[in-house]
Amino acid sequence: MGHVWAVVMAGGSGTRFWPLSRRHRPKQFLAIGTPRTLIEETIARLSPLVPPERAMVVAGEAHAPLVRALLPDQWLVTEPCARNTAPCVGLAALHVRRRDPNGVLAVLPSDHHIGDASAYRRHLQAALERAAQGEIVTLGIRPDRPETGYGYIHYDRQDTLATRNGVQACAVKRFVEKPPRAVAERYLAEGGYLWNSGMFFFTVARLFEDLRRFLPALASALDEIDRALDRGEAEGARVTAEVFAALESISLDYGVMEHADRVRVVPSDFGWNDVGHWAALADFGEADAEGNVRAGADTPDRPVLFVDAHGNIVQRESDRLVALVGVRDLVVVDTPDALLVCHRDQAQEVRKVVARLEALKLEALL
Amino acid sequence: MGHVWAVVMAGGSGTRFWPLSRRHRPKQFLAIGTPRTLIEETIARLSPLVPPERAMVVAGEAHAPLVRALLPDQWLVTEPCARNTAPCVGLAALHVRRRDPNGVLAVLPSDHHIGDASAYRRHLQAALERAAQGEIVTLGIRPDRPETGYGYIHYDRQDTLATRNGVQACAVKRFVEKPPRAVAERYLAEGGYLWNSGMFFFTVARLFEDLRRFLPALASALDEIDRALDRGEAEGARVTAEVFAALESISLDYGVMEHADRVRVVPSDFGWNDVGHWAALADFGEADAEGNVRAGADTPDRPVLFVDAHGNIVQRESDRLVALVGVRDLVVVDTPDALLVCHRDQAQEVRKVVARLEALKLEALL
Repeated sequence: MGHVWAVVMAGGSGTRFWPLSRRHRPKQFLAIGTPRTLIEETIARLSPLVPPERAMVVAGEAHAPLVRALLPDQWLVTEPCARNTAPCVGLAALHVRRRDPNGVLAVLPSDHHIGDASAYRRHLQAALERAAQGEIVTLGIRPDRPETGYGYIHYDRQDTLATRNGVQACAVKRFVEKPPRAVAERYLAEGGYLWNSGMFFFTVARLFEDLRRFLPALASALDEIDRALDRGEAEGARVTAEVFAALESISLDYGVMEHADRVRVVPSDFGWNDVGHWAALADFGEADAEGNVRAGADTPDRPVLFVDAHGNIVQRESDRLVALVGVRDLVVVDTPDALLVCHRDQAQEVRKVVARLEALKLEALL
Repeated sequence: MGHVWAVVMAGGSGTRFWPLSRRHRPKQFLAIGTPRTLIEETIARLSPLVPPERAMVVAGEAHAPLVRALLPDQWLVTEPCARNTAPCVGLAALHVRRRDPNGVLAVLPSDHHIGDASAYRRHLQAALERAAQGEIVTLGIRPDRPETGYGYIHYDRQDTLATRNGVQACAVKRFVEKPPRAVAERYLAEGGYLWNSGMFFFTVARLFEDLRRFLPALASALDEIDRALDRGEAEGARVTAEVFAALESISLDYGVMEHADRVRVVPSDFGWNDVGHWAALADFGEADAEGNVRAGADTPDRPVLFVDAHGNIVQRESDRLVALVGVRDLVVVDTPDALLVCHRDQAQEVRKVVARLEALKLEALL
């Protein structure tokens, strides 16, 4: 068997962390309730399991300088344009295959928060053990609420294997798209359903086998890039750009996982949070006695003050004093050129502000 | 009869408009829902009735440069220290007496908002007409809610005079301190009660007569200042400082009005607002269809954006974009070095923030 290689996907360009996230610095390049940026946290969390030299970052070309600044020694592969996860993972796997045709891949998002890093690595190890056997494996998060924002994985409790470190890996019956509320409630009540974490594990060989089977156009495109890379780096980059522009945008879930055989899921519970919007800070940030969470800059001469305020989240990235008086359940994000005041329950709607800024052509704020 | 003289009191140092108001620039020197500062609005509103050369501003010495900058041609009398309204009005009246011993005074706050300026002047004229007859006159605002933040004036509907311009002036039965809620509700239901507006009218002679009667120490102190002024401006200033430091702090209401005979009130209704706290902006600011009020700076490239937001007040004094999402009834005040987010119903509590800043010795923010 080959080495374990991590592929950390950093191509996202989410808008829900505006005004902190901007086009030139999406969420994965921000510290959100964490001391370092989410991508740095991801690499550091992996390092006992996958040494940094075998952890690749895949990012858009626009963000390459940022990755190099944050992670100067990291192996960086750039996507010439965003085509969703299947082309991204395919390109990453191709680069790994050129170094280690027997490699086993852990494909991981760069922008999640993990509460218990050692439990996380234990589950990763279990997933990699099964992946090394030729299975496609995913981590499934045990749901604690009827969330409608995630896809679900229905698994077979009868078909369960114990891995070497005691973690279980179950056969997948079916991937389910984001369900309506009533369905999500049923899943939670019935059990046997997990949230799709977007983390995938397989050998290079298994991935290419399934790409050829389910996404043959992508598989051919990758072969073409492979041949170009044989002719040198510049030629490889040129052909990658040409080929990517013509590719269909498709996710690995939709393009491969939902059709594949021998797919397993590792039911997991390690304080996972996909940091989907500002309200998520309340889930893992440290709150005071009134449930107020402070994040970002805090200097003694410009404090964040709460007066009769409860359950608020303040992210400050400015040098201004922030005072909240008699308010509840707000998200306040203070940056040098823009201020957001949002209800916690409406944090998903921040994208509407970004849409308005786009309509107004206020490029400087995007 | 002498001329009419206005005394515009600008000695206030309120904290409830923090972070816009600061020690060096209290509320009367701010534009709050108005194109010009409240004190400029006050002088301009008076000018058809009292020409600027007969409108005196009384302010603390620290604010003298600000008054001179805003109102370069204004007659300015400075108080060496704040001793509430009785010493302030006494000092102002002394300076008027030295120019016009037969003068009639209109003593007016500098920091109120008046919706209908011509109705305001009509009521002032009525009050001045009665004051010229030797009465002490005040304007009383017809209440439209059981407000507990104001003093009330109980008047005698039987003892009512019509003035030349048709406005009525009624005998005062009694001044009442800020009442508890149940009492305020009774006042509103019964009728015959008005809010004390803090606007007073009397001849110079009548004021000094009552000061000698009810506040003899203040009357003597003013005589001493008068004699010093005879010896020149420098000597006048020196003695004013010395004498003021030793004076008791007392309001004109408490020290004179509540004891005086022949006191009349002019029941008034001209869109009066004492601009007591940020929520007052909703009373006279222009609201959009969702009840959101914008004040302060608005530039096309840094708009204030509302997304599913209702009944909010945004005062922006920065060059930052402000976005409110899914929130109701907030006050958001954005200044270059401090941000306030406050519930409209808690706007009075902003003083608690100022108290915290004082305790933290954050002088730069006070």
